[in-house]
Amino acid sequence: MVVVGGGFAGLTAVQALRSADVEITLVDRHNYHLFQPLSYQVATGSLSPGEIAVPLRRILRRRHDVRVLLADVTGFDLQRREVTVDPPIADAARRHIPYDMLLVAGGSSYAYFGHDEWRSVALEVKSLDSALQTRGRILRAFEGAELEDSRDAQASWLTFVVVGGGPTGVEMAGQIAELARDTLPAEFRDSDPRSGRVLLVEMADRVLTTFPQSLSRRAARALERIGVTPLLDHTVVGIDRESVTIQARDGTQTRVATRTVIWAAGVTASPLARMLGDASGAEVDRSGRLTVEPDLTLPGHPEVLAVGDMVRVRDGRTGQPEVLPGVAPVAMQQGRFAARLIGDRLRGRSTAQFHYHDKGNLATIGRARAVADIRGLRLSGFPAWLTWLVVHLFYLIGFENRLLVIVRWAYSFFTRGRGARLITDVTGEPPLQSQPAAGGEQPAPERSVG
Amino acid sequence: MVVVGGGFAGLTAVQALRSADVEITLVDRHNYHLFQPLSYQVATGSLSPGEIAVPLRRILRRRHDVRVLLADVTGFDLQRREVTVDPPIADAARRHIPYDMLLVAGGSSYAYFGHDEWRSVALEVKSLDSALQTRGRILRAFEGAELEDSRDAQASWLTFVVVGGGPTGVEMAGQIAELARDTLPAEFRDSDPRSGRVLLVEMADRVLTTFPQSLSRRAARALERIGVTPLLDHTVVGIDRESVTIQARDGTQTRVATRTVIWAAGVTASPLARMLGDASGAEVDRSGRLTVEPDLTLPGHPEVLAVGDMVRVRDGRTGQPEVLPGVAPVAMQQGRFAARLIGDRLRGRSTAQFHYHDKGNLATIGRARAVADIRGLRLSGFPAWLTWLVVHLFYLIGFENRLLVIVRWAYSFFTRGRGARLITDVTGEPPLQSQPAAGGEQPAPERSVG
Repeated sequence: MVVVGGGFAGLTAVQALRSADVEITLVDRHNYHLFQPLSYQVATGSLSPGEIAVPLRRILRRRHDVRVLLADVTGFDLQRREVTVDPPIADAARRHIPYDMLLVAGGSSYAYFGHDEWRSVALEVKSLDSALQTRGRILRAFEGAELEDSRDAQASWLTFVVVGGGPTGVEMAGQIAELARDTLPAEFRDSDPRSGRVLLVEMADRVLTTFPQSLSRRAARALERIGVTPLLDHTVVGIDRESVTIQARDGTQTRVATRTVIWAAGVTASPLARMLGDASGAEVDRSGRLTVEPDLTLPGHPEVLAVGDMVRVRDGRTGQPEVLPGVAPVAMQQGRFAARLIGDRLRGRSTAQFHYHDKGNLATIGRARAVADIRGLRLSGFPAWLTWLVVHLFYLIGFENRLLVIVRWAYSFFTRGRGARLITDVTGEPPLQSQPAAGGEQPAPERSVG
Repeated sequence: MVVVGGGFAGLTAVQALRSADVEITLVDRHNYHLFQPLSYQVATGSLSPGEIAVPLRRILRRRHDVRVLLADVTGFDLQRREVTVDPPIADAARRHIPYDMLLVAGGSSYAYFGHDEWRSVALEVKSLDSALQTRGRILRAFEGAELEDSRDAQASWLTFVVVGGGPTGVEMAGQIAELARDTLPAEFRDSDPRSGRVLLVEMADRVLTTFPQSLSRRAARALERIGVTPLLDHTVVGIDRESVTIQARDGTQTRVATRTVIWAAGVTASPLARMLGDASGAEVDRSGRLTVEPDLTLPGHPEVLAVGDMVRVRDGRTGQPEVLPGVAPVAMQQGRFAARLIGDRLRGRSTAQFHYHDKGNLATIGRARAVADIRGLRLSGFPAWLTWLVVHLFYLIGFENRLLVIVRWAYSFFTRGRGARLITDVTGEPPLQSQPAAGGEQPAPERSVG
């Protein structure tokens, strides 16, 4: 069989198929599995990429029933039962991989609500590459402030706007605030990182809308205490290289001078979802999610399963498609279910429908601060953070990584330092210019520093 | 005073000026100090960038007498006593920084012996960015082999050519061989990393020419044992995207099909050396090195010091300029000397001439193999490797890094695994095409995989 995607859903399925006597080809465009819930810590220099990403081949090295293929999937032929792949390596030919069973777990990316032009300006933390780019931009913003003479010019570098008050937005805002208030102040001479502002823009009337009201309130208060300004009932209506325009519910607009916008709002499914929809006639919703049967199969194609946050699952009783939260536990449960269904089929047994078991909801706000909602048990502050810590270390793949992350976190916890604050590949980043210079390059303005 | 360069020479000088009552501006184009002797371990996935690079601001955060400036130096005005800098941040203006004392430690880069067209094809490990690029290319070569059907095509991906048999070349060749023979074999299904070849091309008749003959021989034997083929008395006469042409001393040429060439031969000084030479009339040699006085000052400009591997030092007795090895101990001793000279001047004392104290020479060949020449004491094998380990951990800046590196190395030592084998930023890398497609993009050839 072919598995597309080595994220939580795809990798869990492959691991659960350990004893299923199936030859598996796992296709991913990256050579690693990313522990995505911690990618925001790479973006703020708390963790190194190697601590939250493990090569897929390494994880699966003892699985002689698994081939790993580094490639982009560019098409499905459901009639001939073939997946078309393009390896990101030159001279490597396009291939058509036949399958008897196909599992697609392509994930999702952020949606810009019809403003795709913002994508090139805003930063993200969903992928490892985007998190590294974000790390460079956040750190360079502090460097930019250090080079300015006026407080106003410094303020635009030291203003960070995070869009989206879900767990990722809350975590990013909290980390940037701690970076500005705890980690960096002693290191700058001509600017004061502490004067920085972190705005967290959320359309709804509270942050963490998937949590109970009381925890949203506590999270908002905790954010304020560490220096984040939550702007609830606000939407972003404009982004350019030098500012963000924010609109309140009453229609008043405010332009905020900033060079650093982190986008963590809205979700659009992987294009693979639409490819499968087009090929099979299955329904695809406005966010690009494919509707799958209650047993996660593609309608009319029991040999194709689709899982993770690129799908909606049709409810067995009501027939209505349901959107599940885009979190790792959903992906892992669906991956495990898919593996069981395949194993059952090989043994001629039928499998029941997929049901999500919600084990709870966790979000960190900063050092030793978090909120947790575990089957009605509501925790906040240090107990919630300890829970978060244990859960994340438990699920972090790879013994060595876990050990390194413990060392790193222990160090950060006691010293408030961050060990991975490197601006790498400066040249790979387009210069932060306000507008493209018309008619060739403009000479840099000269200025004397006394 | 202004210090240019936060490498071993510049940073050591700044640290040694701790109690000298001088206001220092440290200019570097990167925001970190790189522990360069270990950058080859980043290039082969043994260490993460954050483990061998520490933000300069972090190292110097308690030094209120030091400003760090993230900028490229683009000129010197020795008359007006100003350094021109361009920050790598857009909208940031060019600046002229006045100095009373100037210390320039710009380092060096690899020389391509008049073949600058090789620079875009060959890989390096001198900078952190180049080491990361090399890591991606080495790992993708193994992925490329896995995608090929024929042994010949696989062989070209699995052939690695390292140019230069100095410590860096020896270390890179050894690490690639271990990657191919120990770390990766279990992870590939359609290709055999063990069938890979690592060629180490050295112009001289032995590797590690700065070591005693006997250690060179032992190093060559150790390399052969772990799968490296040393090609002594050979030079590279051609490099393109698909091959390297190697010439033996008798003139016979061999074309080796390979996609991965790592360059570690020849040295050319930072362009800052020539800038200072042009501005002062001081001598600059063929490798671009500036000749400085026995006390490391620029001839005719006692207020300007230049140190590290961008300079030759004039011998006080013979008057002849001497090239010292381009290693960290030389840079650190010169940095420390420069700091003492500045301190002495402030106190109205004169300083003697600089003399290099050679404490010894170390090079690793692979896991638990090394050679060491310490004041005549010649070690090889495990004792040399232990010495190497202790020395490198001792000098590795930052407590946290040291701890992380120990965890990482201990893990690698016992499991032969490598924890940082990530191919990041695939898009940042130009595709590995044999030649630019004329007249637009060619469609990828199609091929069916059964």
